[in-house]
Amino acid sequence: GVHLRETMNVLSPAAERLRHILGEDDSTPTPTLFTEMDTLQHEGGELEWKESARWVKFEEKVEEGGERWSKPHVSTLTLHSLFELRTCLQTGSILLDLEGYSLPQIVGESTDGLIPPDLKEKISFVLLRKHRHQTKKPIHRSLADIGKSSNAASSKFMLCGSFTDPAQSRSMNDISDTPSTDQLKNKFMKKIPRDAEASNVLIGEVDFLEKPFVSFVRLAQATTLGGLTEVPVPTRFLFILLGPHGKTKSYNEIGRAIATLMVDDLFSDVAYKARDRDDLIAGVDEFLDEVIVLPPGEWDPKIRIEPPKKVPSAEMRKSVLNLNELGQMNGSAGGAAGGEDEELPAPHELGEELKFTGRFAGGLWLDIKRKIPWYCSDIYDGFHIQSISAVLFIYLGCITNAITFGGLLGDATDNYQGVMESFLGTALAGTVFCVFGGQPLIILSSTGPILIFEKLLYEFSKSNDIDYMELRLWIGLHSCLQCFLLVVSDASYIIKYMTRFTEEGFSSLISFIFISDAIKKMYYPINRGFKPDYITAYKCECIPLQSSVNGDVALNFNLTDLDWSQLSKKECVKYGGALVGNSCKYVPDLALMSFILFFGTYSMTVSLKKFKFSRYFPTKVRQKLISDFSIFMSIMSFVGLDMLMGLDTPKLIVPTEFKPTRSDRGWLVMPFGKNPWWWYLASSVPALLVTILIFMDQQISAVIVNRKENKLKKGCGYHLDLFWVGVLMAVCSFMGLPWYVAATVISIAHIDSLKMESESSAPGEQPQFLGVREQRLTGILVFVLTGLSVFLAPVLQFIPMPVLYGVFLYMGVASLSGIQFWERIKLYLMPAKHQPDFSFLRHVPLRRVHLFTLVQIVCLAVLWILKSTFLAIIFPVMILGLLVVRKLLDLIFSQHDLAWLDDILPDKDKKKKEDDKTKKKERKAVEPESDEEVREIWTNMKLNSSLPSTHTQTRILFSPKFANLISWY
Amino acid sequence: GVHLRETMNVLSPAAERLRHILGEDDSTPTPTLFTEMDTLQHEGGELEWKESARWVKFEEKVEEGGERWSKPHVSTLTLHSLFELRTCLQTGSILLDLEGYSLPQIVGESTDGLIPPDLKEKISFVLLRKHRHQTKKPIHRSLADIGKSSNAASSKFMLCGSFTDPAQSRSMNDISDTPSTDQLKNKFMKKIPRDAEASNVLIGEVDFLEKPFVSFVRLAQATTLGGLTEVPVPTRFLFILLGPHGKTKSYNEIGRAIATLMVDDLFSDVAYKARDRDDLIAGVDEFLDEVIVLPPGEWDPKIRIEPPKKVPSAEMRKSVLNLNELGQMNGSAGGAAGGEDEELPAPHELGEELKFTGRFAGGLWLDIKRKIPWYCSDIYDGFHIQSISAVLFIYLGCITNAITFGGLLGDATDNYQGVMESFLGTALAGTVFCVFGGQPLIILSSTGPILIFEKLLYEFSKSNDIDYMELRLWIGLHSCLQCFLLVVSDASYIIKYMTRFTEEGFSSLISFIFISDAIKKMYYPINRGFKPDYITAYKCECIPLQSSVNGDVALNFNLTDLDWSQLSKKECVKYGGALVGNSCKYVPDLALMSFILFFGTYSMTVSLKKFKFSRYFPTKVRQKLISDFSIFMSIMSFVGLDMLMGLDTPKLIVPTEFKPTRSDRGWLVMPFGKNPWWWYLASSVPALLVTILIFMDQQISAVIVNRKENKLKKGCGYHLDLFWVGVLMAVCSFMGLPWYVAATVISIAHIDSLKMESESSAPGEQPQFLGVREQRLTGILVFVLTGLSVFLAPVLQFIPMPVLYGVFLYMGVASLSGIQFWERIKLYLMPAKHQPDFSFLRHVPLRRVHLFTLVQIVCLAVLWILKSTFLAIIFPVMILGLLVVRKLLDLIFSQHDLAWLDDILPDKDKKKKEDDKTKKKERKAVEPESDEEVREIWTNMKLNSSLPSTHTQTRILFSPKFANLISWY
Repeated sequence: GVHLRETMNVLSPAAERLRHILGEDDSTPTPTLFTEMDTLQHEGGELEWKESARWVKFEEKVEEGGERWSKPHVSTLTLHSLFELRTCLQTGSILLDLEGYSLPQIVGESTDGLIPPDLKEKISFVLLRKHRHQTKKPIHRSLADIGKSSNAASSKFMLCGSFTDPAQSRSMNDISDTPSTDQLKNKFMKKIPRDAEASNVLIGEVDFLEKPFVSFVRLAQATTLGGLTEVPVPTRFLFILLGPHGKTKSYNEIGRAIATLMVDDLFSDVAYKARDRDDLIAGVDEFLDEVIVLPPGEWDPKIRIEPPKKVPSAEMRKSVLNLNELGQMNGSAGGAAGGEDEELPAPHELGEELKFTGRFAGGLWLDIKRKIPWYCSDIYDGFHIQSISAVLFIYLGCITNAITFGGLLGDATDNYQGVMESFLGTALAGTVFCVFGGQPLIILSSTGPILIFEKLLYEFSKSNDIDYMELRLWIGLHSCLQCFLLVVSDASYIIKYMTRFTEEGFSSLISFIFISDAIKKMYYPINRGFKPDYITAYKCECIPLQSSVNGDVALNFNLTDLDWSQLSKKECVKYGGALVGNSCKYVPDLALMSFILFFGTYSMTVSLKKFKFSRYFPTKVRQKLISDFSIFMSIMSFVGLDMLMGLDTPKLIVPTEFKPTRSDRGWLVMPFGKNPWWWYLASSVPALLVTILIFMDQQISAVIVNRKENKLKKGCGYHLDLFWVGVLMAVCSFMGLPWYVAATVISIAHIDSLKMESESSAPGEQPQFLGVREQRLTGILVFVLTGLSVFLAPVLQFIPMPVLYGVFLYMGVASLSGIQFWERIKLYLMPAKHQPDFSFLRHVPLRRVHLFTLVQIVCLAVLWILKSTFLAIIFPVMILGLLVVRKLLDLIFSQHDLAWLDDILPDKDKKKKEDDKTKKKERKAVEPESDEEVREIWTNMKLNSSLPSTHTQTRILFSPKFANLISWY
Repeated sequence: GVHLRETMNVLSPAAERLRHILGEDDSTPTPTLFTEMDTLQHEGGELEWKESARWVKFEEKVEEGGERWSKPHVSTLTLHSLFELRTCLQTGSILLDLEGYSLPQIVGESTDGLIPPDLKEKISFVLLRKHRHQTKKPIHRSLADIGKSSNAASSKFMLCGSFTDPAQSRSMNDISDTPSTDQLKNKFMKKIPRDAEASNVLIGEVDFLEKPFVSFVRLAQATTLGGLTEVPVPTRFLFILLGPHGKTKSYNEIGRAIATLMVDDLFSDVAYKARDRDDLIAGVDEFLDEVIVLPPGEWDPKIRIEPPKKVPSAEMRKSVLNLNELGQMNGSAGGAAGGEDEELPAPHELGEELKFTGRFAGGLWLDIKRKIPWYCSDIYDGFHIQSISAVLFIYLGCITNAITFGGLLGDATDNYQGVMESFLGTALAGTVFCVFGGQPLIILSSTGPILIFEKLLYEFSKSNDIDYMELRLWIGLHSCLQCFLLVVSDASYIIKYMTRFTEEGFSSLISFIFISDAIKKMYYPINRGFKPDYITAYKCECIPLQSSVNGDVALNFNLTDLDWSQLSKKECVKYGGALVGNSCKYVPDLALMSFILFFGTYSMTVSLKKFKFSRYFPTKVRQKLISDFSIFMSIMSFVGLDMLMGLDTPKLIVPTEFKPTRSDRGWLVMPFGKNPWWWYLASSVPALLVTILIFMDQQISAVIVNRKENKLKKGCGYHLDLFWVGVLMAVCSFMGLPWYVAATVISIAHIDSLKMESESSAPGEQPQFLGVREQRLTGILVFVLTGLSVFLAPVLQFIPMPVLYGVFLYMGVASLSGIQFWERIKLYLMPAKHQPDFSFLRHVPLRRVHLFTLVQIVCLAVLWILKSTFLAIIFPVMILGLLVVRKLLDLIFSQHDLAWLDDILPDKDKKKKEDDKTKKKERKAVEPESDEEVREIWTNMKLNSSLPSTHTQTRILFSPKFANLISWY
């Protein structure tokens, strides 16, 4: 007969039944089930039940020989066993909502009336034998071993679990109502959710049965049945299969099948809510309808499949049974590889933070409103061990940065701003920003463009006889004002146009600069032509210069008395001597030692970070100790190595006194008096450059920090951030401190060091990335520590600079990892067949991907070249150039490709949807399409895998009653 | 009804049927099938067939968006689609052995009589549309793209595959009998076996059909049907499914199901040999019976499963259908995780090479008989690119060794044996051994124990006024004689007692010594207290000593005229000056540069070796170039770095002239004349020590080289090896050259550098380790080159020694990798749940594994300590101690555990089997066991997973007719 059913609203009988029972009271979630499978064993002439496997979500098998649990793995079943199980449920005794309080009573009721009384007694006897769980030491092996070798040394090992031990033989030999101490002490309890209930599967071979005895029992109330279960979890379900001898393997497979079903999200729901036998069988049928089948010739059943990173959620699977989504889903249920053609990446969402409010300071107001409720949690969320490692890491990064930039600024401004100002400014600006800012995960720092600006400004002031500090103050004030204007006008909304293209381009470039700066710092001269044989010719002598004797150096003692050869290098220079000799400019071993410290710190940090994925040590140690503190441990190791070698490597020297680097300036800059009045107005022009510079640098770093991949939950505050950056501009200008703006690389490092992963719950479940520990505490601590570094100088002076540049290198490289641009560059070197299975590669032709990457590389190269010229000052402005390039890409690439490789620009968003629609129509030209709204197509894209058709169609029907498997004719 | 069937000799009807058809003519293997699935597409209003997936063994899907092939993956099917396919085969038209020569004719015949003529015409029209294969550029995307952006730069990319291209539109628009050029040029042909035939799956939706049209065609002769298939492979099977609109996904899944079946080893056999529809359906049923099922809640069907390393062989699967093995196998067919309890590791097989023949020189005779047939292939098997890298690698190892030992021997014997002798001896002994030896993969070299023996012997001779060279000659002659005695008496058979325990202990120890020697060589002093400020104080001056002026140094010019400060270090020493100063003993940067060269060479070699497993570059480049030549490339890089730095690192200096190191000795040692006659006899006592030393060293290295893991095919020759080592003892003694014996670490490196892997054939199939390129050429070349090194001196002198020690370090570490002992040591650091799934862990309790490892560690520690004392001379003899320890382990460990962790000792072998039997009986106490022979139990262990029972049992019957799925009652 031909079965005609409409695709839209017809379910298979099994699904129909399930929808009915599951739909009844969807509000009460059923408890998680822990399933234990015990098999009947003959040990030394006695019968006992021995645990052979358990399931929380995945299967763990008892490895008899190894006396251990196997790794959690996906239960691979045979179709055979599932069909046999189905038969068992069809023919066995099914007792639903049995009022059970003890095992004997339950056993009694389940055997009632089904089998002859003599068999009933025997079955009860078997079922009431004691249970041996895997937590206990085995008996048979040790006894056997002792018999074989009565060696004293070994028997000590094995006697610990013999029959005579009273603690062992207590459990379940008779009925015990309370769980044994073994059960209560079982550490496995941690892995089981609090509300869990147990289902027990008992499988055994007996000699008195001619045909199998099967019973499926659901108790009305979950009851703790003594030593039945490994853990003190109350039992809700019992599945008993006893059969005649000779079919152990087959019985075991049936047991594994029911156990796997019991932990299946959907079937366990069915089991809890089933009203009769047919409901259970419908559950099995639905399970069968969804199973994934591997062909026997392409897979070895002996391979234990590792649990996947992600499994389909129970909700998604249940929703298949809901009518409203049925039309879309039914066709694709279980479709292994089909339908991804229609998938589209989730659109780029910047959220309401960047909406243009149109009101005065509307964005700022929203930012404050958004952040205030989080303020308390911003503090107490910081109390975590992970914060310590993050603080140490970022602190070291910050002071290295402060010293580097401080030194450079000092050179550029004749010490008007030196290392001391740099430390103080970093501490002040950072603390204020972390306390009040919109995104406290952002770390403020001096940046390259600001440095170049200051340098040019100082040169200009000097050559034009203008007071540098006063001019700088006015520029700062104007810039602050301009920032406020940008804040109140919600100007930050233009960041919406920053797509992955811009973000990744910018952050890669900054990372490259970071890396190249770190490497450049490593240059020390090496005496390359050194010949050990001519060691006698290598010297460096101090020789008095004729000129210096007659020179203007005022000497208070007679120079001729001086033993010039005894002077040290410094003294020689001081007294006007000249250093003559071929070894003067070299410090032996310095260059190579620095290289070893630099590269060693970097490699050790990388290795320790990777150690997280190794198999050694318990997860806690690996994760919390070694991986989180990898940077600290590397620094300590190489500081130790440096001390051990005793070489004069450059060290981290921080100022030890609170006073301005130049003695002729104070801590406050006066706004008036030194320059002509019109400079107060004219300074608004250079201020504009500074503002653009700061705006771009700040906001793009914020975009990178707020990336959706980071799963931030507390929202961001672009307007609030900019407001505080503006305020700090003014404050720093008044105090004559450097200006601060978000530092991309260190902020990314901050985020990375605060990433959270879920503790894996069920054995085998993969930990998920949960998000970032969003709080203000680490940032505040970092900057308070920076301020206190003046007092930490005695400790810090042991740290060699190469070690810190190694940390810089790590930061730079780490911030590159995981960005798609980098992955795409690697694709150039890979033959197509070895390329990883990136989703964009499934949807965009490789040559288009390569073209897109090439455009990015060219952009970066151009920026890199510009950066090396005087144009470096407008570097952040060049990001605007990237935005233009991105806009032009719309002409070269289809929106489909860009959706995969980049994000759709806001105004293209709507256009894209229309495109899609047209394309869809093109492809399914012969298929009528309902006149749905464009919006709906976009959001339902994933569900719309096969659009509903109004045709009356022949449907290939998969009847769960295998008896009448359909014929079409 | 209850189905009662005996386990032993009853098959399911499907299996019965298959056994019948497959058993008919098992001798002719069926060709491999290449399957291509094409789906009907509407492109620009025209219908065409588009390739959507292909199978050689695993599935490769066309990724439409990406315009690429997916990675080969395991086909995950839905049960649904398999049942639907079954229905298709039940109801569709099945044409077996159709005489087809062209597609129109085949299409005509397959539609004959089944459907109305008007439909037939339409179906023919659809089926004869042209086929577009994935090799061609797509049309729709490029056109769409051009329409969207008429940008010149991009359209250049996309025009290359438009409709107007005549080459494109030719294929299959009409019937073409010859394959198109596209087909012939397809490189994929390489991946398909030569004898392959194609099966084509055509899946389409059409609007004129009310119900699906299904046809399965087998042609009597495989015929090339023009452009039907991507590659010019003749088509044997056609599966056509055309149906009404709206079920694309379902149709595609059915297509994937039949395609997967067609490449299944078992089903393709069935398809070739099927006599009627029911045979095909039986094939499907058998396939269903074997499939592996993954529960929907534990696996995401979207995950593409990587092809496994190993799949069950077709033979194994077919054998299930054979009656004789049926009883054992039937129960476990598809048993995913069951039954490994009975598995036992394959027993240690040393083969007939070590049988005690009992005849005079019986073993030697057998060795020669065994090796002679391989002699020609031993030469021509060497002609391979891999040999070049192996020769370079081993050559560098050998000369480094020759120089190291030559230097040490020279020191120990006052240059009676120096570097020159070492080179000559290595070249001579190595060449002779590689030309005539039993196992030419073994590399001869001086070893530590010999060195210590020579040292002691020289000291003894010197203090007792005995001629060293003559005494040494007589010891060598006696030792040679003793070796011959050992050879003719087949004494090597005792090696059978060397189990993994001894082997791994010995090779680990040798590796540790190798590593520690390499590291020790890296010590150079560093001027640790150097303060750059006091650079003026660092100098090294040459000062004339008072004594030297009056001393016995004959000077032919006036010393007072000498400008002492202008002398170099060497001159200063020559003229008797003293070097005074605090920088005299240091060479700046030398220590660190050496460290960088040493560690750099090592790390680069390791990284390049690992590069094989990366995704970059085509497999050929990675494997043949980068990985195989990794050592050469690392050496070159660091030689380059060294030259660039220009530092005076120690270089490899080989002698440049053929003359004995000492001028007072010649190339021949006379046996008589210098020592009293009784020394000629007495020397047999020390010779005994040398013999034991050589015997143990040689044979255990041979055992390690001949390990079964190395899969050597040409057999070994322990007796022959020992014979030649004896001969060389005598020859070297006569020529005054060092003695040579097998060098464990270098021999392992030799083996490693000659390992072969299969070229992967079907996409996704893992390359298998095939064995070692066994030949004599590489060895011979290595030693000939060593002999010629005297002429290579100008090139070799650029190689710094630290680089070569880096290679040594690599050799030492590499020879440790992959041995089980090392893996077990790592287990100490791993929590049980993270431990890898080693099979021995499944069967032996962890504490026993740890105990076993601990014993090994203690043994090694003791040996290490002894080695550091004067006992080092009897070091190889201590291996005998290891054998004793191993024997004692039998008392502590059960034979079961030892079988997994080690090997069973020969005499325990039989005992073990009996043990097993008893154990078996114990476990299956209630089960009667047939009285089989012990031998049979051992060999059939894997098959005996469920022993046949004589009971008449109820069998849970899996009927392939799902209609009457069994009830037991």
